[in-house]
Amino acid sequence: MQYLYGSGEAAAISRQAWSALTFYVGEVLQGKDRRSVVLAEGASLDAPKFVPCAGKPPAAVFDVDETVLLNQGFEYDDLTGAPHRDFDDRWAHWEKTGIHAVSPTPGAKEAIDALHRMGVMVIFNTNRNAFNAEPTEQAIDEAGLGPARHGETLFLAGDDKTGSLKDARRWRIADHYCVIAMGGDQLGDFSDLFNEASNVPARRALTALPGVAPLWGRGWFVLPNPVYGSGLQGGAGDIFPADKQWHDPATAPKGGH
Amino acid sequence: MQYLYGSGEAAAISRQAWSALTFYVGEVLQGKDRRSVVLAEGASLDAPKFVPCAGKPPAAVFDVDETVLLNQGFEYDDLTGAPHRDFDDRWAHWEKTGIHAVSPTPGAKEAIDALHRMGVMVIFNTNRNAFNAEPTEQAIDEAGLGPARHGETLFLAGDDKTGSLKDARRWRIADHYCVIAMGGDQLGDFSDLFNEASNVPARRALTALPGVAPLWGRGWFVLPNPVYGSGLQGGAGDIFPADKQWHDPATAPKGGH
Repeated sequence: MQYLYGSGEAAAISRQAWSALTFYVGEVLQGKDRRSVVLAEGASLDAPKFVPCAGKPPAAVFDVDETVLLNQGFEYDDLTGAPHRDFDDRWAHWEKTGIHAVSPTPGAKEAIDALHRMGVMVIFNTNRNAFNAEPTEQAIDEAGLGPARHGETLFLAGDDKTGSLKDARRWRIADHYCVIAMGGDQLGDFSDLFNEASNVPARRALTALPGVAPLWGRGWFVLPNPVYGSGLQGGAGDIFPADKQWHDPATAPKGGH
Repeated sequence: MQYLYGSGEAAAISRQAWSALTFYVGEVLQGKDRRSVVLAEGASLDAPKFVPCAGKPPAAVFDVDETVLLNQGFEYDDLTGAPHRDFDDRWAHWEKTGIHAVSPTPGAKEAIDALHRMGVMVIFNTNRNAFNAEPTEQAIDEAGLGPARHGETLFLAGDDKTGSLKDARRWRIADHYCVIAMGGDQLGDFSDLFNEASNVPARRALTALPGVAPLWGRGWFVLPNPVYGSGLQGGAGDIFPADKQWHDPATAPKGGH
């Protein structure tokens, strides 16, 4: 939390991501070839194929939490509030009453304003709850990032039968728009396929695949979030490769490495 | 550590930063106006001025730890090794014996190779110790990121009398090169002035100053590091603005906010 909500470093990374996105979109709009960055149904990360764009107006699709909004109030409560409460209950209360306890991620408002000026439709695809669509529209709008309208520019968990998966919502959006850029803090904001990886290093390795690696900063834009999410998994043996597991020779046990 | 060393999200942010840098440098080299991104002596963050570039060959300056190298071995030892040891001792042992327990940050090698192809000199400015210059040269070289040569393409803590401050070393580099891009995981990798901020929110606010904000992703490139560093400071009252300190109404004490 110190890093994400308090540090200049995380604020700078956030601005850097939004700046890269703004320049990238400007460049794409000047070119002839408007490629969608939404993976097509049935595509794989090994052999990515994207939905067709012909004849569709340009759009950018963003996750909401820790992508366009910093949930400062919720995290403050997480850090200082009563312990041992049910997450889902607390989160639902947050969606409903935390409307003014959020801020845009650094650089988000400037970038979304620039997208609107460039004629790019801005659409939100979030796992906030469909039963709280109205306060979420309000939170986005009052942070200056809207308009967010449920079913038009706002897609929520509960909109379909796939729960917190986002591919089906992405395909629904991509039926009507040429999605030239996406932004998120979780790999699932780009493709549900990332979360099918069988273990921690395999999931990380998917981001380096030849068809995937060039998309980071060129179509897919990642915001920092070390506070929560699907990436926070694994023990020392999962996150540090076996051939990098050093010990200080001054204190390593005899026979140890 | 799960985030930085284990997650696909952090790997993707790292690739995004290196990609943004590579495209930015290509663009700068095609233009006429090669602006230095090293703040001049006496400049402030409020009114940034940069050192002159006329007649100097282009260079990019990078921090080393958690910027071009992931210190996987050191962090593994931090997590699993003997506790309560002196940090400076352990770090000095690491510099000397950890040469093969590091990896390039995701995307670093591809970007540094591209810089070399574009004729940009790659220079490292790190707070690793001057007394361990040789193993640090070796660590950088053997990770495929070199050549690192002390006093030419590698500048270290102890090279001058300013300790871990980096401005004097930056100015020394900028006497000979037009530094068109810098990369780091700490604000001090861009200017020592960031660390003169009087408190946590003030330090974060410096990154949003009108003369500073446009540099993130356009000259100054930030790599993620929520594991250690000057940004990890402050309590709840420092990192969450007073007007964003929400509590769940279902559990908030009466009279609380």
